[in-house]
Amino acid sequence: MDFKNKKIAVLAPVAWRTPPREYGAWETVASNITEGLVDRGWDVTLFATNDSITKAKLCSVIEKGYEEDHTQIPKVSECLHISYCLERADEFDLIHNNFDYLPLTFTRFINTPILTTIHGFSSPDILRVYHSYKDTYYVSISDSDRDDQLPYLATVYNGIDLSNLTFREKAGDKLVFLGRIHPDKGTELAIEVAKKCGKDLIIAGIIQDQQYFDDLIKPHINASSIQYIGPVNPVQRNALLKQAYAIIHLNTIPERFGLVMAESMAAGVPVIAMDLGSCREVIEDNVTGYLVNNVDQAAKAVGKINKIERHKCRKRVEENFTIDCMVSAYEKVYEEIFRRESEK
Amino acid sequence: MDFKNKKIAVLAPVAWRTPPREYGAWETVASNITEGLVDRGWDVTLFATNDSITKAKLCSVIEKGYEEDHTQIPKVSECLHISYCLERADEFDLIHNNFDYLPLTFTRFINTPILTTIHGFSSPDILRVYHSYKDTYYVSISDSDRDDQLPYLATVYNGIDLSNLTFREKAGDKLVFLGRIHPDKGTELAIEVAKKCGKDLIIAGIIQDQQYFDDLIKPHINASSIQYIGPVNPVQRNALLKQAYAIIHLNTIPERFGLVMAESMAAGVPVIAMDLGSCREVIEDNVTGYLVNNVDQAAKAVGKINKIERHKCRKRVEENFTIDCMVSAYEKVYEEIFRRESEK
Repeated sequence: MDFKNKKIAVLAPVAWRTPPREYGAWETVASNITEGLVDRGWDVTLFATNDSITKAKLCSVIEKGYEEDHTQIPKVSECLHISYCLERADEFDLIHNNFDYLPLTFTRFINTPILTTIHGFSSPDILRVYHSYKDTYYVSISDSDRDDQLPYLATVYNGIDLSNLTFREKAGDKLVFLGRIHPDKGTELAIEVAKKCGKDLIIAGIIQDQQYFDDLIKPHINASSIQYIGPVNPVQRNALLKQAYAIIHLNTIPERFGLVMAESMAAGVPVIAMDLGSCREVIEDNVTGYLVNNVDQAAKAVGKINKIERHKCRKRVEENFTIDCMVSAYEKVYEEIFRRESEK
Repeated sequence: MDFKNKKIAVLAPVAWRTPPREYGAWETVASNITEGLVDRGWDVTLFATNDSITKAKLCSVIEKGYEEDHTQIPKVSECLHISYCLERADEFDLIHNNFDYLPLTFTRFINTPILTTIHGFSSPDILRVYHSYKDTYYVSISDSDRDDQLPYLATVYNGIDLSNLTFREKAGDKLVFLGRIHPDKGTELAIEVAKKCGKDLIIAGIIQDQQYFDDLIKPHINASSIQYIGPVNPVQRNALLKQAYAIIHLNTIPERFGLVMAESMAAGVPVIAMDLGSCREVIEDNVTGYLVNNVDQAAKAVGKINKIERHKCRKRVEENFTIDCMVSAYEKVYEEIFRRESEK
């Protein structure tokens, strides 16, 4: 049975461009799904900001991401974007929602099946929406980031674009923190680890919690041992990973997936991560990095990084977290949805 | 032609109970519309929080207002509430939206006509939604609170419930500020007026801007000349208005309607208001109060309050701003909508 004659709509968020210039995890994944499907011959329409870049057909009513244009009220852009897509539902065989929960409240009005990749529960309260629309289709992004009461079709790990992630056999000499500067990501714990080990640390990422940055990060920043370089785009990230001895990823809440861990391993960089949430699904403990429970364990793990064979980091990504892996998995999910719909 | 066999859904906000215990202007008006329609024999279903009080049929998926239960994410409650109502659209001949802009994005999916009373533009950006859904029906709450590009069916002034607003011929001796404590409402200007006149001021209302309260209001509060009594329910408001010599309402942005002005006049209390927005539609200048442009003019106006005949304040409300006036006006609007729909 050939499903490639089906028309797919991919609904991306509109916080940032798809793909984002720098930060924007959901837009990154929505882009990778879209481009991966196009490469395999699917007929794809991407609903995203109008400055998005895609090989699919692009449909937009939002000129640019509301995080890049603060004249926009996010809720206004969100609802106009969603209704614009769903008002055209009849043109598609499947709508792949990468937006969040708001589109679900439109689903009873449309006949086209809607698949929602749940990129994360920003609050337990958003489960009220997911529980109210269980008659639609759900995918989780890791086995750990699941709600007990939701009927998932599958877990599909995020797939990353390897084109700007050069594998390097030779380790750099810096510890690197890469991600949002936010207590959830444990930026201050990475600083503690670096100080304990006497190694330099480079911090890169957007400041999502300014108070946290000002109070707990900024006082440690200097021009040498603890540097902050701001957010990085994919080219800058590649250069940064070249300098990396290891990634310090001491998340303080369960990780949902952890794109940064996959990206780092793709460059051959081992990851020292807190054993919370999906980290043990992304990292193979003792093979591509170390799972730890606190700063002391993380500092000890730095001491045995040379036991990690860097090509095994790359291999783990190639076998599990590429766009190709992800799109293959989604093709199976789509097939299952079309099968279920045809039986209705 | 008898329209009373038509089924009407009234969609209220879910920030507060309908009617609200204390503050909640939109919920107040949604309640007054609902109860007024029921009193005239309409078949009305009210979509509001589950603790709401109505003679109509009550439909709810939200237990209580999100402003009264901070475990709720407002957007989650809003979208579930709206979709619950609109998924049942076929059961109604008309949906009267008192919610705001979000329900508009569902309108292309339903066949039932939707009338939106625009209770206010919280930001110019929400006009993007109103402009995108001009094929629905709009009502403004004053002639001044209109956007040039929207096709309004009518202006329908808010109608108030007179049952807890006792007319009193005899003036009290206090100046009163009644409303949200917020820079938009000019609470600090009311204090200036009271000090200039050497009269006592009672301030009542919710604190909507805590910084503003702490910086500009709290330092002036004492147990005698400048009192703050918190929010008031309708019974407390009635007692407060008994003490009122005049209401000082020096809004700093255009007023959209100004329920407080109508409520005060209903009790026979003249209003000194900034000449911005709808104030000159609600107050009859020199007859039911004074329109002013600054604190000095307001202080002078206090000096000539005894020229206002208090029964004329009451009369203006009885003739223009009762529930009966409002519901009569909405009946005309509904009739026009049914006429247009029957011609489609």
